Amino acid sequence: METPIKELEQKAASTKSASKKLAFLSTAVKNQALLNIAEALSAREAEILAANDADYQAAQASGLSAAMLDRLKLTHERLQGMASDVRAVAALPDPVGELFDARTLPNGLQISKKRVPLGVIGAIYESRPNVTVDISALCLKSGNAVILRGGSEAVNSNLALAKAVQDAACQAGVPDGAIQCLQSTDRAAVNQMLKMKGVIDLIIPRGGSDLIRFVAENAAMSVVTGGIGVCHTYVDKTADLKKAAAIIYNAKVQRPTVCNALDCIIVHKDIAADFLPVAARELAGAGVELRCDERALAILKGQPAVKAVPARASDWGFEFLALIAAVKMVDSLDQALQFIEKYGSGHSEAIVTEDYTSAMRFLNEVDAAAVYVNASTRFTDGGQFGLGAEVGISTQKFHARGPLGLKELTSYKWVIYGTGQVRA
Amino acid sequence: METPIKELEQKAASTKSASKKLAFLSTAVKNQALLNIAEALSAREAEILAANDADYQAAQASGLSAAMLDRLKLTHERLQGMASDVRAVAALPDPVGELFDARTLPNGLQISKKRVPLGVIGAIYESRPNVTVDISALCLKSGNAVILRGGSEAVNSNLALAKAVQDAACQAGVPDGAIQCLQSTDRAAVNQMLKMKGVIDLIIPRGGSDLIRFVAENAAMSVVTGGIGVCHTYVDKTADLKKAAAIIYNAKVQRPTVCNALDCIIVHKDIAADFLPVAARELAGAGVELRCDERALAILKGQPAVKAVPARASDWGFEFLALIAAVKMVDSLDQALQFIEKYGSGHSEAIVTEDYTSAMRFLNEVDAAAVYVNASTRFTDGGQFGLGAEVGISTQKFHARGPLGLKELTSYKWVIYGTGQVRA
Repeated sequence: METPIKELEQKAASTKSASKKLAFLSTAVKNQALLNIAEALSAREAEILAANDADYQAAQASGLSAAMLDRLKLTHERLQGMASDVRAVAALPDPVGELFDARTLPNGLQISKKRVPLGVIGAIYESRPNVTVDISALCLKSGNAVILRGGSEAVNSNLALAKAVQDAACQAGVPDGAIQCLQSTDRAAVNQMLKMKGVIDLIIPRGGSDLIRFVAENAAMSVVTGGIGVCHTYVDKTADLKKAAAIIYNAKVQRPTVCNALDCIIVHKDIAADFLPVAARELAGAGVELRCDERALAILKGQPAVKAVPARASDWGFEFLALIAAVKMVDSLDQALQFIEKYGSGHSEAIVTEDYTSAMRFLNEVDAAAVYVNASTRFTDGGQFGLGAEVGISTQKFHARGPLGLKELTSYKWVIYGTGQVRA
Repeated sequence: METPIKELEQKAASTKSASKKLAFLSTAVKNQALLNIAEALSAREAEILAANDADYQAAQASGLSAAMLDRLKLTHERLQGMASDVRAVAALPDPVGELFDARTLPNGLQISKKRVPLGVIGAIYESRPNVTVDISALCLKSGNAVILRGGSEAVNSNLALAKAVQDAACQAGVPDGAIQCLQSTDRAAVNQMLKMKGVIDLIIPRGGSDLIRFVAENAAMSVVTGGIGVCHTYVDKTADLKKAAAIIYNAKVQRPTVCNALDCIIVHKDIAADFLPVAARELAGAGVELRCDERALAILKGQPAVKAVPARASDWGFEFLALIAAVKMVDSLDQALQFIEKYGSGHSEAIVTEDYTSAMRFLNEVDAAAVYVNASTRFTDGGQFGLGAEVGISTQKFHARGPLGLKELTSYKWVIYGTGQVRA
C-alpha cells in the first residue's frame, strides 16, 4: 500500500485537476449527479452497511461509548435520510454563475461580479459518516471538488460512502477525482494536508473543539471554524416567564447534543425566585441537571422535583452537549452582557424580555453569529434560516458568519466588458 | 524603553478594548474624526515633515535606491493629497449597521443580517508612509480599530502621522487606542503579532511578495493577501489592432509601478507580424523594453525604434513594476489560456478580441480577480470600480476578491426578532 502522504498528494492533485472542470459543469449535470447519488445510497445499501458493520464491530471492541457508537451506526433509515438530504440539495438553486452588483461605469465599462466556486475544499471531520455524503453533495452543487478525511473509527463506512457517491456522480458526467476520501487516517497526513495551500483552497474542520482549534492554528490556507456553541439565554426582569420557560426548555431539551443548544441560563435576580423553580421542574422532567451559582442554588435547594447542584468554575463557558445547563444569577442587563462577553463562544445568544430597550441593547451589544429576542437559539441552522442545507455554522467573522449554505462555498470574480477603454 | 513584545502586547490590548467602543460610534462622530484628521495633516505639517526628514536622511545615508527614497518622501503636496483622500473616505457611506437579506420566516421570526465591524485590523506594510493614514481612515470609517506596523525606514514618519491621526480622531470622540502604531519595527514583534489570534481579527500585509507570503503562511488569524499582480493581455487573432495597441500602452505605461499594470503581452501568431512592430514602437517611445520569446523576437529584431531583447525563463510570471514587458506568441486561444493559468497571479487578465466566443471563453475560463474584454487592466481599483477608497486588492477567493472597499472590512451578525418561537 502507498504511504499516507503519497496517497494524500496523489488524491489532492487529482482533486485539484477535477476542480477545474467542475467549475464549468452545468446545473443539469450537477443535479443529475445528486439524484444518482441518492439512488446509489439505496442501490448499494448492503455494501455500505457491511462496511459500517466492520467499523461498528471494531469500535465496540475498542470500547467506544454508547453515544459514539450510536453516532457511527448506519441503518436503512439513516441511509434513506441521507438520500433525502441529497435530493434536497439537488432542489436548491445553483449558486455558481450568479451575476450581482452589476453596473455600467461612467466610462462605459460594464462590470459585475460573477459567482464562482472556491476550488478544492478539504473536510476534516470526526465520527458521523453522514458528513461524508452531506459535504460531498454541498461541494458538488457549489462546483467545488472535495477531499475528505474522516475519523479512523468510521474509515470503512466513509470509504464505502465516498465510493458510492463518486461512482454515481461520474455516471452523470462529474469528472473523476471530484470527490476523494483518504483511506489513511494517519495524523501526519492531516498535518501535510494543512500545508497544501495552493492545492486545497479551504479547510472545513468538523468535530470537537480540539480538532477545530488544531486546524485553525495550523492550516496555511483559509479555514472556516465553527460548530462550537456555548449558548446563553438571558431571562430579563421584564420577561414573560411562560415564554421564557418554553424557550429555555426548547433550547436545552429539543436536541441537546448540537451546537445551538442552550448551555447556560442567565436570570435576573428580580424574577429568579418566581422563574427558576418552575423552569427547573420542567427541565428536570426531561432529565436536565442544573449547575447553579450560589444565589440560584439558594432558590432551588429543597425545591421538589428539580435537579440542582452547585456549579464549578469549569461549568461557565462550557458546551455541555448533554442534558445539563449552568445557571447564573445577575443584578442587571449589563452584568448579563458582560457575562456573555466573557463566556460566550460567539455562536447564538438570546434574551427573553418584554422591555424594548433591553431587547435592542442585547441585539446590538452581544457579539455573536446569531442574536435573538424571545426565541430559542435552536433556530441557528441553515435549513431554519431558509438557506437550504448547511455545511456548518461559522463562529468566525471572516468570509461568512452563522449557517454556511451553498453561497458561502463560493467566491466571485469581477467580469468587465469594454470597448477599448483605457485609464486616464 | 519597553521591549518590542511588551509594546506590542500593550498596544494590542488597548486596540482591542477600543474596538468594542468603536463598533458603536455614530457615523457623525466617525466623519467628524476623519475631517479632523484631514485638518491635522495641515496643522501638524511641520512636525510630520521633520519626522519624515529624519527618516529620509537616514535612508539616504544607508544607500536606499532613488525609487525607494521617492516613495518615502513626504511633501506639502503629498500631505494635502492624503488629507483629500481622508475627506473622500468621510464622504463615503458608512457600511456599519446596514441591514440586508431581511425576511420573515413562516414561523413569524423576523431575521436579517446586520453589518458589523471585524474588530481589530493588523496592518503590516513597507515603505510609503501614506499607508498609515489611508488604512487608519478606512478602518475608522468601517468601525475597526487598527494596529499599524510600518517599515523601519519610515518609522519616524509613521509615528508622527499616527500620532496626528490618533489625536485628531480622539478630539471627535473616537476612543483612545483605536489607532496604534508600533514604535519598534523588530522582527520578533511581527512574529508575535501573527500569533495574536483572538486579539487581532484580520491581518492585512501590504508590500513585496516575500512579506505577503510570510504573513499568509505564518498568521494564525485571517489574512487578506493581494497586491501582487502578474497581469497578461492577450491580443487575439481577431483583435482590433488599434484598440489593442492603445490598451497595451495604457496598461503598461500609465503607471508601471502598480499591481494592475501589464507584465506580459500574449499575441496570436496570425496577427503578430502586423501588431508587434507597431505596438513595440509606441511602447519604446515611452521607454518600454520588451523581453520576447523566440518567435516574437524574430519579428521585432531589426525593427527600427523598438527595444526588444530575448526573454529569460524568469521573465514569465514576473511582476516587473517597471517599464518592461514580456512578450509571448501563441498559436491559439487555448494556448493563451494555458499560459495565463500557468503564469498568472489571479489578479487582472485581459483579452483584446472582436470574436464573441473567444471573449466569452476568456471571461469564463480565466481564474482571476478581474477579467476584461477590450479594456486596460489598470481599471482594477476600488476608486475605478466605484467602491470609493480601497484597502488593497485581494487575489484570494475567500471573503473578498479584487478591490477591497469599506464593506470588505466588515462582517455581519444574524439578528432575530421572535415572539416566543421554539423549534418543533
